[in-house]
Amino acid sequence: MISLDEFLGKVRRETDAALDLIIPQSDAEPRRLHEAMRWSVFAGGKRLRPAILFAAGMTFGASESELASTAAAIEMVHTYSLIHDDLPAMDDDDLRRGKAACHKQFGEATAILAGDCLQTLAFKAISADESLASDTRLRLISLLADAAGTPAGMVSGQQLDLDAEGKTLSIEDIETIHRQKTGALISAAAVSGAIIGGASDTELASIKQFAEKLGLLFQVTDDILDVTEETATLGKTAGKDAADEKATYPSHYGIERAKDLSRILRDDASSALSGIGKDTTTLSLLADLIGARTA
Amino acid sequence: MISLDEFLGKVRRETDAALDLIIPQSDAEPRRLHEAMRWSVFAGGKRLRPAILFAAGMTFGASESELASTAAAIEMVHTYSLIHDDLPAMDDDDLRRGKAACHKQFGEATAILAGDCLQTLAFKAISADESLASDTRLRLISLLADAAGTPAGMVSGQQLDLDAEGKTLSIEDIETIHRQKTGALISAAAVSGAIIGGASDTELASIKQFAEKLGLLFQVTDDILDVTEETATLGKTAGKDAADEKATYPSHYGIERAKDLSRILRDDASSALSGIGKDTTTLSLLADLIGARTA
Repeated sequence: MISLDEFLGKVRRETDAALDLIIPQSDAEPRRLHEAMRWSVFAGGKRLRPAILFAAGMTFGASESELASTAAAIEMVHTYSLIHDDLPAMDDDDLRRGKAACHKQFGEATAILAGDCLQTLAFKAISADESLASDTRLRLISLLADAAGTPAGMVSGQQLDLDAEGKTLSIEDIETIHRQKTGALISAAAVSGAIIGGASDTELASIKQFAEKLGLLFQVTDDILDVTEETATLGKTAGKDAADEKATYPSHYGIERAKDLSRILRDDASSALSGIGKDTTTLSLLADLIGARTA
Repeated sequence: MISLDEFLGKVRRETDAALDLIIPQSDAEPRRLHEAMRWSVFAGGKRLRPAILFAAGMTFGASESELASTAAAIEMVHTYSLIHDDLPAMDDDDLRRGKAACHKQFGEATAILAGDCLQTLAFKAISADESLASDTRLRLISLLADAAGTPAGMVSGQQLDLDAEGKTLSIEDIETIHRQKTGALISAAAVSGAIIGGASDTELASIKQFAEKLGLLFQVTDDILDVTEETATLGKTAGKDAADEKATYPSHYGIERAKDLSRILRDDASSALSGIGKDTTTLSLLADLIGARTA
């Protein structure tokens, strides 16, 4: 049994090695494009989605080499969304992970292309992963596309979020946005790992339930941190949600009830794991880690 | 034997029917996103890449139902690139296919998301096409990703094009940009059709050679049209290349030599077809059509 820190270190090494193979080097033409992609992908992200994918995969006996390219693919989709989200026409944020946002460093045009290309390489990476059976690869591609796209994925969630600015939303509306914008990709990470590990349909259903709670937990804690933390600690501009009049759990419930909700979601996530007849310790520790950010 | 017009009409109907199934309806939430995607996809594009794909596929005996979703996928990738290309940070063009560009109609943020999501749905469409064998689908996804991405695809070509603005380029540099920016996706359309039709490796090589000439032919005629035609005829802003100091065949060679080159490429494309022991009439007519735009 390795510690959570050792596990997270291993995930980072495996994922980063896969990313380094998939994304052309900075000295390959067009250099500016590849530099921009690498700037954002290797900006020190927490590799949370890969960690969830690895933890779910290893729960069902997948090997690290079977998991790495799908983990890299999901991280590339996540990173492309951050690059485009930071653009002036979107959230207009200059800072990401404590560094200049991609468009501040490389210009808007290159940032748009770098995001576009990271999405392309995500699908390429899975399609070319010969450690996985053909039908598994297709299933993972289809799952990732659903999680990244519309009508219940990351991009549709971003559009709902845009549409909602300045409006008063019900808690159901807020939850729908979160489920799509953040939850869908987190859920795809967990389910992808379980698929690669050969989980049964029943096990996949439990993993999905776990991941949905985890996704909401992540978003609630993220919204709380936006209110309570400083820019330097966050590595991105703090207080953006309020400035943009975004609908969030804290803006709807207040900080204390939002913190209560995060504890409830953390418990629900753990409960969802109890139906799986495997050692789910690592998944459970990840849920604790995500919840503990605001404990 | 149907006429080219009948063939193009059939391609349009089949491709548009597939696109209409793949892209959520405008009354499904988030409406603004789906409206924006449909605005650009159904803006009256010529469906040239689907036509090339269908012509190559039918040359090798593929059925229309096996070709439609891959044709739609390639058209979605093409359309996403136009939406992002028209953004203020890129080519800053207000007109596309005679209508307002996506960002003029729906705002920049939604246009960015609509482009992103069209790319996602392209990969989804192929992965979910059960009329094709699993390995065929993976091969098509991998081919499309290479054509759309980097280091020798559409996005790398766009980056090279950005890097080149205001610089004097050699004819080799111009050709590299064209091969990647426009040629790669046109070539992927032809090769995808041939793969679906079960072409042999030798046949694929001939189709690829044909498509590469066709891609350059398309770009040369496009560059010539940008100089010689009016905005109303083009359906996009004329004279943009010169205004942006873009390196093009006409800017390098002058109009007359560029026209000579387009005739040579048209002949080369036809020659590449001669090695294929099938009826390549439709492919040949398509090359004539593309070349004839400036004859």
